Amino acid sequence: MRLSDLPTPALLLDLDRLEANLTRMAERAAALGVALRPHVKTHKCLEIGERQRALGARGITVSTLHEARVFAEHGFEDITWAFPVILSQLEQARAVSQRTALGLVVDGPEAVAALERARHPFAVWLKVDCGYHRAGVDPCAGASVELARRIHTSATLRFAGILTHSGHAYHAFAPGARLGVAEQERRVMVDFAERLRAAGIAVPGVSVGSTPAVTAAQRLDGVSEARPGNYALYDYTQSVLGSCTVKDCALTVLASVVSSQPGAAHCVIDAGALALSKDPGPEHGPHPTMGELFTDYERGTLHSDRRVTSLSQEHGIVNARLPVGERVRILPNHSCLTVACFDEYCVVRADEVVDRWKIWRGR
Amino acid sequence: MRLSDLPTPALLLDLDRLEANLTRMAERAAALGVALRPHVKTHKCLEIGERQRALGARGITVSTLHEARVFAEHGFEDITWAFPVILSQLEQARAVSQRTALGLVVDGPEAVAALERARHPFAVWLKVDCGYHRAGVDPCAGASVELARRIHTSATLRFAGILTHSGHAYHAFAPGARLGVAEQERRVMVDFAERLRAAGIAVPGVSVGSTPAVTAAQRLDGVSEARPGNYALYDYTQSVLGSCTVKDCALTVLASVVSSQPGAAHCVIDAGALALSKDPGPEHGPHPTMGELFTDYERGTLHSDRRVTSLSQEHGIVNARLPVGERVRILPNHSCLTVACFDEYCVVRADEVVDRWKIWRGR
Repeated sequence: MRLSDLPTPALLLDLDRLEANLTRMAERAAALGVALRPHVKTHKCLEIGERQRALGARGITVSTLHEARVFAEHGFEDITWAFPVILSQLEQARAVSQRTALGLVVDGPEAVAALERARHPFAVWLKVDCGYHRAGVDPCAGASVELARRIHTSATLRFAGILTHSGHAYHAFAPGARLGVAEQERRVMVDFAERLRAAGIAVPGVSVGSTPAVTAAQRLDGVSEARPGNYALYDYTQSVLGSCTVKDCALTVLASVVSSQPGAAHCVIDAGALALSKDPGPEHGPHPTMGELFTDYERGTLHSDRRVTSLSQEHGIVNARLPVGERVRILPNHSCLTVACFDEYCVVRADEVVDRWKIWRGR
Repeated sequence: MRLSDLPTPALLLDLDRLEANLTRMAERAAALGVALRPHVKTHKCLEIGERQRALGARGITVSTLHEARVFAEHGFEDITWAFPVILSQLEQARAVSQRTALGLVVDGPEAVAALERARHPFAVWLKVDCGYHRAGVDPCAGASVELARRIHTSATLRFAGILTHSGHAYHAFAPGARLGVAEQERRVMVDFAERLRAAGIAVPGVSVGSTPAVTAAQRLDGVSEARPGNYALYDYTQSVLGSCTVKDCALTVLASVVSSQPGAAHCVIDAGALALSKDPGPEHGPHPTMGELFTDYERGTLHSDRRVTSLSQEHGIVNARLPVGERVRILPNHSCLTVACFDEYCVVRADEVVDRWKIWRGR
């Protein structure tokens, strides 16, 4: 089937770009001397996870226990649930950990106490705040060392190491800013690991990650693994940040014009908030957008002044009057949230649909 | 099961409030002398659709062909796909229309021509712009009368009538403004129907709708049906608009605190953008919010200064430091988009989970 025959709206995944992105990051991690544990919350797709594994990823990262369950049931044997453990899901976590090596994440004594009460040999990562200030323990606080010691000396738990997420790299738009965040992340984690080791606490793993930081990092000495996720697909926000070029973006939404009124300065397309998500895009982008329009996807060229300007549930508004039936190919602001709107990828090479891959969204 | 035993995040549907909302709108439509054709895009749920039917709704409204297919396969026999027909989905529309009376919507000559080429006896509504200016023909233009005539005289198509959506009622925050939009919507449609009839075109149906306008309307003379959807659940935006009180809101998200660091002014909950959606809420609300926190759901009381202030994929940030494990009940900004994040409702009465209902999201 050709793109021109595909019913819209459709979620397109360009196979060549995907594979180039996966290969480039695998090579980058190898060059930086760290293991790659890709975050599959971005794609929620077994076929992509299998490609990441084939390129050397020994483990994966998930953001929900549902994702952990799906990948565990399909042969993925080393999974980190990189979210502060949800204590009301401990029974389900125990069930998943029967099938796979499941790492949990904690950043406070309440969670450690609850995990100890569960009397199950969970692998536990201590989450560290490396500057994002969303979650994670303060690496300079003595209590953080004591919390690590408590996990390390637990009779039931296994201390997997320390983990962080440099989410503030998504706010690093100035030249060199992503590199600064990446080095800060590395420095904070290596220093904290050294303090723990000096206190007699073995630190098996030092885990960092975010696509903008990992793509900027020049060195990751002292780090054992990186957990970027978005790099598989990229999106408009990443291109503005400089993590990629527009031409690297593997995910687009194919939509059609469905309404175009004489005299109007806009038209309506069949991709709304439930196709693109309401992610507002990069905070320091050149203009407000809810989705950019390609003029030439193969060349990676965006339209200079046509874009999606607003979204309701199923309607998208484009700021130009295009004829009914015309197709537009949209670069979403945030690929992770866009993927979660669809049940499958239409996998394409140039303008041919070569496969369909299931998206395991859900809870 | 009690709410306190439920794993989080969970989507809660309060059965008593739902039933009260459904009954109130059914009575309102009857009092206004119009048929009620509820929009099921809000709830995507057969059990709710069946309750709406039991209360007198003869037909339903959908926003996607997927919704039409699901409801048609489960015995709903009169469905309007209230979205400008997607021409690349005509084959699928024909298949659905074998099972159910399926009404399509057009607002331009291209769509009418394509429907005529399909040589299938589709029922066709002409979409009219009543002031929202998103889609729909100009009711004052001669070309609009001619387009209606073309459908009316088509050898294959059946003219179902004229249809509009007063989406601008969502911007009507001033006192009396919703009533003004409702009366404008009615007036535009009745005038246009009269012009068509004067031109010899029979107009079987005059269809209006939006929850904020229908809940404000004082009369709907000349209108045959109304298509509100959100009223089944309501949400924070509707409460700010005045369509409902907070106590009428039937949909909430139950979340837990998962991270709470000493010295921080916030905590992290397990409801992020994929639980609440990134809908920014009412444009003229009292404060920015990504989700309001109840202090007492039964009484309908919101916390005066604690709320969800930002969202990433699975993390929500609450602007207060609450203890890990504490549960919060969140009133979402936009129930339609929140529902589309989940696979099922936990149906509750007070603090007891009495049922689970499937959400037929997807495409």
